[in-house]
Amino acid sequence: MVRIGIIGYGYWGPQIVRNFHTLEGCEVAVVCDKSDAALRRAKQTYPNMQVSSDVEATLAAPDIDAIAVITPVWTHFELAKAALLNGKHVFVEKPFTSTAAQSEELIELAEKKNLRTMVDHTFLFTGAVKKIRQLVDEGALGKLFYYDSTRVNLGLFQHDVNVIWDLAPHDLSIMDYLIKDKVEAIVATGQNHLNGHEDMAYITIYFQNNIIAHINVNWLSPVKVRTTLIGGEKRMVVWNDLEADEKVKVYDKGVQITNEEGVYDLLVRYRSGDMWAPRVEQTEALKAECGYFVECIKNNTTPFNDGRAGLKVVRMLEAANESIRDRGRLVRV
Amino acid sequence: MVRIGIIGYGYWGPQIVRNFHTLEGCEVAVVCDKSDAALRRAKQTYPNMQVSSDVEATLAAPDIDAIAVITPVWTHFELAKAALLNGKHVFVEKPFTSTAAQSEELIELAEKKNLRTMVDHTFLFTGAVKKIRQLVDEGALGKLFYYDSTRVNLGLFQHDVNVIWDLAPHDLSIMDYLIKDKVEAIVATGQNHLNGHEDMAYITIYFQNNIIAHINVNWLSPVKVRTTLIGGEKRMVVWNDLEADEKVKVYDKGVQITNEEGVYDLLVRYRSGDMWAPRVEQTEALKAECGYFVECIKNNTTPFNDGRAGLKVVRMLEAANESIRDRGRLVRV
Amino acid sequence: MVRIGIIGYGYWGPQIVRNFHTLEGCEVAVVCDKSDAALRRAKQTYPNMQVSSDVEATLAAPDIDAIAVITPVWTHFELAKAALLNGKHVFVEKPFTSTAAQSEELIELAEKKNLRTMVDHTFLFTGAVKKIRQLVDEGALGKLFYYDSTRVNLGLFQHDVNVIWDLAPHDLSIMDYLIKDKVEAIVATGQNHLNGHEDMAYITIYFQNNIIAHINVNWLSPVKVRTTLIGGEKRMVVWNDLEADEKVKVYDKGVQITNEEGVYDLLVRYRSGDMWAPRVEQTEALKAECGYFVECIKNNTTPFNDGRAGLKVVRMLEAANESIRDRGRLVRV
Amino acid sequence: MVRIGIIGYGYWGPQIVRNFHTLEGCEVAVVCDKSDAALRRAKQTYPNMQVSSDVEATLAAPDIDAIAVITPVWTHFELAKAALLNGKHVFVEKPFTSTAAQSEELIELAEKKNLRTMVDHTFLFTGAVKKIRQLVDEGALGKLFYYDSTRVNLGLFQHDVNVIWDLAPHDLSIMDYLIKDKVEAIVATGQNHLNGHEDMAYITIYFQNNIIAHINVNWLSPVKVRTTLIGGEKRMVVWNDLEADEKVKVYDKGVQITNEEGVYDLLVRYRSGDMWAPRVEQTEALKAECGYFVECIKNNTTPFNDGRAGLKVVRMLEAANESIRDRGRLVRV
Repeated sequence: MVRIGIIGYGYWGPQIVRNFHTLEGCEVAVVCDKSDAALRRAKQTYPNMQVSSDVEATLAAPDIDAIAVITPVWTHFELAKAALLNGKHVFVEKPFTSTAAQSEELIELAEKKNLRTMVDHTFLFTGAVKKIRQLVDEGALGKLFYYDSTRVNLGLFQHDVNVIWDLAPHDLSIMDYLIKDKVEAIVATGQNHLNGHEDMAYITIYFQNNIIAHINVNWLSPVKVRTTLIGGEKRMVVWNDLEADEKVKVYDKGVQITNEEGVYDLLVRYRSGDMWAPRVEQTEALKAECGYFVECIKNNTTPFNDGRAGLKVVRMLEAANESIRDRGRLVRV
Repeated sequence: MVRIGIIGYGYWGPQIVRNFHTLEGCEVAVVCDKSDAALRRAKQTYPNMQVSSDVEATLAAPDIDAIAVITPVWTHFELAKAALLNGKHVFVEKPFTSTAAQSEELIELAEKKNLRTMVDHTFLFTGAVKKIRQLVDEGALGKLFYYDSTRVNLGLFQHDVNVIWDLAPHDLSIMDYLIKDKVEAIVATGQNHLNGHEDMAYITIYFQNNIIAHINVNWLSPVKVRTTLIGGEKRMVVWNDLEADEKVKVYDKGVQITNEEGVYDLLVRYRSGDMWAPRVEQTEALKAECGYFVECIKNNTTPFNDGRAGLKVVRMLEAANESIRDRGRLVRV
Repeated sequence: MVRIGIIGYGYWGPQIVRNFHTLEGCEVAVVCDKSDAALRRAKQTYPNMQVSSDVEATLAAPDIDAIAVITPVWTHFELAKAALLNGKHVFVEKPFTSTAAQSEELIELAEKKNLRTMVDHTFLFTGAVKKIRQLVDEGALGKLFYYDSTRVNLGLFQHDVNVIWDLAPHDLSIMDYLIKDKVEAIVATGQNHLNGHEDMAYITIYFQNNIIAHINVNWLSPVKVRTTLIGGEKRMVVWNDLEADEKVKVYDKGVQITNEEGVYDLLVRYRSGDMWAPRVEQTEALKAECGYFVECIKNNTTPFNDGRAGLKVVRMLEAANESIRDRGRLVRV
Repeated sequence: MVRIGIIGYGYWGPQIVRNFHTLEGCEVAVVCDKSDAALRRAKQTYPNMQVSSDVEATLAAPDIDAIAVITPVWTHFELAKAALLNGKHVFVEKPFTSTAAQSEELIELAEKKNLRTMVDHTFLFTGAVKKIRQLVDEGALGKLFYYDSTRVNLGLFQHDVNVIWDLAPHDLSIMDYLIKDKVEAIVATGQNHLNGHEDMAYITIYFQNNIIAHINVNWLSPVKVRTTLIGGEKRMVVWNDLEADEKVKVYDKGVQITNEEGVYDLLVRYRSGDMWAPRVEQTEALKAECGYFVECIKNNTTPFNDGRAGLKVVRMLEAANESIRDRGRLVRV
């Protein structure tokens, strides 16, 4: 039985509590939040669950194996570090930390103490992303050309971070999961219209081997869009996460440059074939992720979405922030 | 009666010929193309129309009032200049010329000889763009925040220009038509995967007063997208040009920062109201544009889509090309 | 404080329990189900709630004011009648009863004992239906022409009733709520392919004044559709309940027969104007309905979705069943 | 060289003329219409084409091999009969004739004189219908369950026929082409709101072997819909003719009744697999049909869409009209 203490019962915390609560082989030892209102809500939903406003005690409780940190990003480092120092495994909400240096320190600390770290990159556990990863791994798309994501809606405005830190971690973690080639550099542009933080941003990520990624994030869009295009030499994918069914569509389409002699027009050839929407798993991603965390603790194995994966995302966020402040200056990663 | 000579009967030329042909008060004097096959096609459709492969003669013909240049962009300058020198008004396919210097020379020449220049920015004559312009002019959107366009599909690959010069002129001319504030600088990123020209590109345009525009153009998308989001302080527009009806949707949505004292959470307020799809004119844009050209010649008035408008687009294309070659370097316009 | 006993904790029961549970001024006294597994599920979610497998005791409990009957339709009559005889108000899942005669008996009994009956026609409490009703009441649509609904998906197969009794009560209750004119007759066609019950059906309802309604229900559709067209002389509505936003679209379109002299072609005139998607309330319909039930009990008022409303739906279901068995014979209502 | 005389240059005639005109091995000998305006339009588009207002002369012209009858339905019989009597093959706009008796007379006459008849069921030549037919023939859908089509829009109001005769021939001919089982009976309901002809109608067609078809046609819909669901035991098809790409979607979904003992719930099993949108031919259907007519004349072969196919559609139209007048009375076919 893995006993987990969960710190933070705001917007996302209740989802984490619910999932760990219903998992076999796992128990929510305590829900900790500084807000009395939050604790009352927790108590109302789970009358028999222990709640606490004492963060120190939660982090130090001898009967707790792991700590889930579901708080604002600027608090992640301090809380996760204390948990690790107390010998607890940590599950940390994305993004992992506010700086790459913090991520590196946590990774080193966890390794020294042989503890697990996991960053909550929930999307990696969705049926859609798993199916796309499978297609990439099987070579169904051929050599990758690009990853182009649009993630826009009206709000939610965060007041401690800009739209990049709020929305882009999703795409950066998915992109990192799907593309094995190395990131070389980042260009980010954007604008703030209201309160000093960028409310819209455009991030270009240059990879090795001519792969390019682009992420369009926006808090000021009248419509919600969650669409990603992934282009390969052999096939192309459109992933629309707002579709109830048929989230992932695979197009047997492409462009080829042929080596024939003659006028240029003959050298570019389009292929246009069937479209195919593979059935994707419908299970709750967060439930699978929480279960995976517990398994990794039990089996003493390193999760693929560990602190190192979290660090890669934080490095790209830092680069994007550096670039956007300087109106698109190329920042090496 | 305005007599027009049309040079170039390739992909777009037949549309121009058809529209000038059916206009009252205007006559197509000759269709000129170097390709015999093109001329045969013209003759088949219009058995009584004069065709010619002699460009010089067409440009110099004494009974011709205006020349339409519907040829590849690298030939625009030379043809338009010769036409102007021969005292002909010119209608030039977009983009106006290959360089801003060429545009400037043509503008100066036309002014000196008191001739009309018009650049074929067809979209400015669509019901959708006219309706959006009306909304902007009436103040229905409030202060503008951003213009964000996606224009992607599979091909058509051009072999003399990259995807920016092929697709972005549409968005740049529309953007310039809708936004009165001045462009300050441009950042463009992108990649070429096949033949040396960029096949996908992301262009950010910084305007004065915190307005920002972004254009996503791509020849390698498995699906065709023609969607533009325009965000204003009071209302927001989604223009989907692929919809048969309801191309323009106006959202009574927004975000406001209020000045109330107290915790931050209270300061950002979302408004969410009705959506409204105004009926837009269904007449053919190109027909209206051709008619407008003839009117401007007759009335000796300067078209709003004249050489100066074309120059502004060319300047942004040049800046985008300069930026993309240097991986997103900020280029002042 | 109104105390409610809820009988039936299968597919829909948990929604009813949850909503009455969170209502102010109301208390779930007991959840009653014959299945131990169901009671265990209830207990797990609400550890402090009383559960029981004793239906008789629940129906007779002196501290209970009202009974919610959330069981298969063939049990509604018996349970509701016993509740009424015991002096309890009743809230009954749709459709009200298996026969019109049963509905009539319950209505009479409730009146004699001055008790409230409510039939769970949840859709009448959605923002979409309330908005359409408002448009009808205001005369925004003009004289009504038709109501045409498609409600198809793959399953859920019921084993005690056909697809008409499973899916059509939604549309029949909505239609009855929107259209004031009287139903005259019903024609139903359909087919059973698998287990003896019709799995698809087409129901035409003839109203007075040339109004016609049609309901397409199908358990064998590969895609889920929930779309209703409502045509009026002045405006027309498309209600797509699967849209996240913009569920209700109002089209300023129509056809008019004019009285001008001359050839026929001039007599039919189309109007085509704007489309408008009014913002609709997003609150949970079932919550509003449960609250309304409690209010009606407290204030001793008759709900608009009372037994009489339920009876009208049951009469149409009976007529449809009679018609479909005879391959579309016209059945007067 | 097959020489064709085309009678009728109204709404559809120009399409027929254009296609026969561009076909190899075929020549449009004359375009005949009683309206001078129509003939002027024809002459403007085809300056070298012969036009005539003399129907008798056209029908009797010795140098004409075939007559295309593209006129209102009530004139089809007389014109086609005269053409056959004069030894001409006939191509007739759908529906074939106003009555089944007329169709039978034309079929008999054509057989006696060994002439070809073809009814313009254009949809049978679309890539979409050909692909669906192929899927049915291959057994990809398994045993067919149903065909359910919605074909609604605002107008076009015909003044000589109701909406059934205007729109349903499309679906009836497609249905007849896809389903080999025999039609048993028809039920039609509907309503007229404006000018005495039904402007909306619902047609149920009962086939042998429990197959059922339904056609929803409506001139009063604010939105245009062209969607057909085809359910089979193994797979199901959704054909949306308004989609630019992906018109035909094949769903690997189904319901099975298993023979296992035990509770009912176990007996109904849903399958839910991939969706697949096969690429469909993009060539113009009417061009293929016109070419097929010419081939059938040259090779002396009977078209599959001959008068007999047209007769089957007319019989169903007659039955539907008989049924709708009697509010859904079952009419045997």
